[in-house]
Amino acid sequence: MAATVGVPRAIGRVLKGRPCKAVVSLHGPQRFLSTTFKASDLQIELSSHLKSKPDPGKLVFGKHFTDHMLTIEWTQEKGWGKPNIKPFQNLSLHPASSALHYSVQLFEGMKAFRGLDKRIHLFRPMLNMERMFRTALRACLPPFDKSELLECIRQLIHVDQDWVPHSDSASLYIRPTFIGTEPSLGVARSTYALLYVILGPVGPYFATGSFNPVSLLADPGFVRAWMGGVGDCKLGGNYGPTIYVQNEAAKEGCQQVLWLYGEDHQLTEVGTMNIFMFWKDQQGDLELVTPPLNGIILPGVTRHSLLDLARKWGEFRVSEKVITMADLIKGLEEKRVKEVFGSGTACVVCPVNRILYRGKNYHIPTMENGPEIAKRFLKELTDIQYGRVASDWVQPV
Amino acid sequence: MAATVGVPRAIGRVLKGRPCKAVVSLHGPQRFLSTTFKASDLQIELSSHLKSKPDPGKLVFGKHFTDHMLTIEWTQEKGWGKPNIKPFQNLSLHPASSALHYSVQLFEGMKAFRGLDKRIHLFRPMLNMERMFRTALRACLPPFDKSELLECIRQLIHVDQDWVPHSDSASLYIRPTFIGTEPSLGVARSTYALLYVILGPVGPYFATGSFNPVSLLADPGFVRAWMGGVGDCKLGGNYGPTIYVQNEAAKEGCQQVLWLYGEDHQLTEVGTMNIFMFWKDQQGDLELVTPPLNGIILPGVTRHSLLDLARKWGEFRVSEKVITMADLIKGLEEKRVKEVFGSGTACVVCPVNRILYRGKNYHIPTMENGPEIAKRFLKELTDIQYGRVASDWVQPV
Repeated sequence: MAATVGVPRAIGRVLKGRPCKAVVSLHGPQRFLSTTFKASDLQIELSSHLKSKPDPGKLVFGKHFTDHMLTIEWTQEKGWGKPNIKPFQNLSLHPASSALHYSVQLFEGMKAFRGLDKRIHLFRPMLNMERMFRTALRACLPPFDKSELLECIRQLIHVDQDWVPHSDSASLYIRPTFIGTEPSLGVARSTYALLYVILGPVGPYFATGSFNPVSLLADPGFVRAWMGGVGDCKLGGNYGPTIYVQNEAAKEGCQQVLWLYGEDHQLTEVGTMNIFMFWKDQQGDLELVTPPLNGIILPGVTRHSLLDLARKWGEFRVSEKVITMADLIKGLEEKRVKEVFGSGTACVVCPVNRILYRGKNYHIPTMENGPEIAKRFLKELTDIQYGRVASDWVQPV
Repeated sequence: MAATVGVPRAIGRVLKGRPCKAVVSLHGPQRFLSTTFKASDLQIELSSHLKSKPDPGKLVFGKHFTDHMLTIEWTQEKGWGKPNIKPFQNLSLHPASSALHYSVQLFEGMKAFRGLDKRIHLFRPMLNMERMFRTALRACLPPFDKSELLECIRQLIHVDQDWVPHSDSASLYIRPTFIGTEPSLGVARSTYALLYVILGPVGPYFATGSFNPVSLLADPGFVRAWMGGVGDCKLGGNYGPTIYVQNEAAKEGCQQVLWLYGEDHQLTEVGTMNIFMFWKDQQGDLELVTPPLNGIILPGVTRHSLLDLARKWGEFRVSEKVITMADLIKGLEEKRVKEVFGSGTACVVCPVNRILYRGKNYHIPTMENGPEIAKRFLKELTDIQYGRVASDWVQPV
């Protein structure tokens, strides 16, 4: 499959990076256990069968994948192997793999955007690399050099650059994944692992011109994450159990789950998003609030960016603190709540208009209030992502 | 690979089970979405390369696998496919599979034993089938007929019957596994799934004659499961995060983790085992205690069986109730605690002799007390499993 069709221009540069075999053999493999892989070792095998690209107007999240993928194997015995870019293909996994039995697995979600200047940009990608590294340590998967991984991802995007939509609202979703491939059933640190990255074009979360709010089921009987657990890591095990609860929400006529925690029913997250509330506090001061990173909250890159933006604006207080259902309900009764919205890579911001809690529907006046703050966040962040406003938050691919 | 070597006698019977294609075509596929697979539809492809069997004296848990595996595919569109017994081989999985990203995965652990009469027995297998079924519903994986799965597993064991150790202490470990194979990245109910079963011979947990106790790290900073979560289901996501904590225990010189819960530091589980305490209560009455199935405890088959045995004995009170570290420490100080042990499929019972809690080591006098109850459980259960004592808890394969 060493094809020449559709070869992007970066390949020549990549192919120059060859491992120095002489050095390795001089010192023997024991002395040179790789503590990271290196982008300069990238091996590239191009696909000879390029897929036709889906209609950019009909993209469904996560259904379409590009022509290539990045894979990097690790073993305890030999350390990291060379990174490979190769045709998108199924993985061949031992049926006892620790990823499949004990959920030794983690992922990241990030996007590449086609800027006004037609060049491709990544949005704060090192924040994803850092979170991935931290999650890997918690999963007892091996460490790696974050910059080398980012460079490998950049090369992968370069190979599949034609898949980055020419659009000011669609983008290329990037899914780095890291799994234990230990082929035995003991519950123990994996001695084999596979890091891989797949890509796919995704459409805008909201159709042009619309900004549809969602309704939430807040049922304290379902708890997403807990103190002493792993809710602050992007581990697969935090997501699978939410599917059942999401279905329960749908049965109750709600679109997403509002995850509560503790006897005081703290608001923690919305679906797979962080949550924000913009309100007047009890003293009448405007405040943007989101729950603190206390161990049960995923440190979202969008969450981080909204906090950064709001603090830069300096127009109201910005707080990371616990919000309870009692706080919210009191604020609603006193007409102090202006906007409630989720934040995430997929939607940037997602307004909330209703919460079903203990059998009662609470209307949230997010849409009636513009939603001014949510729209401003969406505009400022997408202006940066699509290169309409210059920012050091974006990096060229 | 349709080989004739090593064909067991059950195959003729199995091969007779053919689907009635005429009926399906008369009514069309839409009307006949399979709500379960059927053992009578089993397709068997035998391996032509049988592996050499490992030295029964050197078996490491979960490292050796037999020659064949069972696989059964499901899709939302077509329902269950036919079950297949085929040569043990790697799985080919889409890199976006929900099992790898969102931990849509579950498993069971059970054993087949070679009885005194040389026949092969399963120990209370329907308890595993029932737990697997219940866990599948929580994982939003499709339901199946539990008896049909058990019959497929029996056929698989029959095919690999030579792998069941001729031993009164080793056995064949059985690992049913059920994963989501949805090839897209939305966090949603999987529309593709794969149920598979692998087998491997395992040695005795304790070397002959020994009954080694383990030491436990009890650190309330690490919480295994929580109310409103999925700790009572055998989902992979409950296991991966424990590896890090197990390593922390090892750093502290302890062999396993004692999982605490809540502000009162309730004892919940030990490593991947349930926990039992045998003591005199505050009134001086003998009591066997294990935590109740309140949502954070895995309902272990061995746990269930020990409770059944002790209740049948009728010699002391048998309680399923919360035990806190304060209860345990008071009991130790007043010399009322006789034995603490874990229970599980791997070991049956595993005595505990030390707990490290808040920087202090608490000696548990399990070994000094025989351990009478632990040994009696081990003997009675293994006598049943290896057919030395007749019981309706075992079923022939």
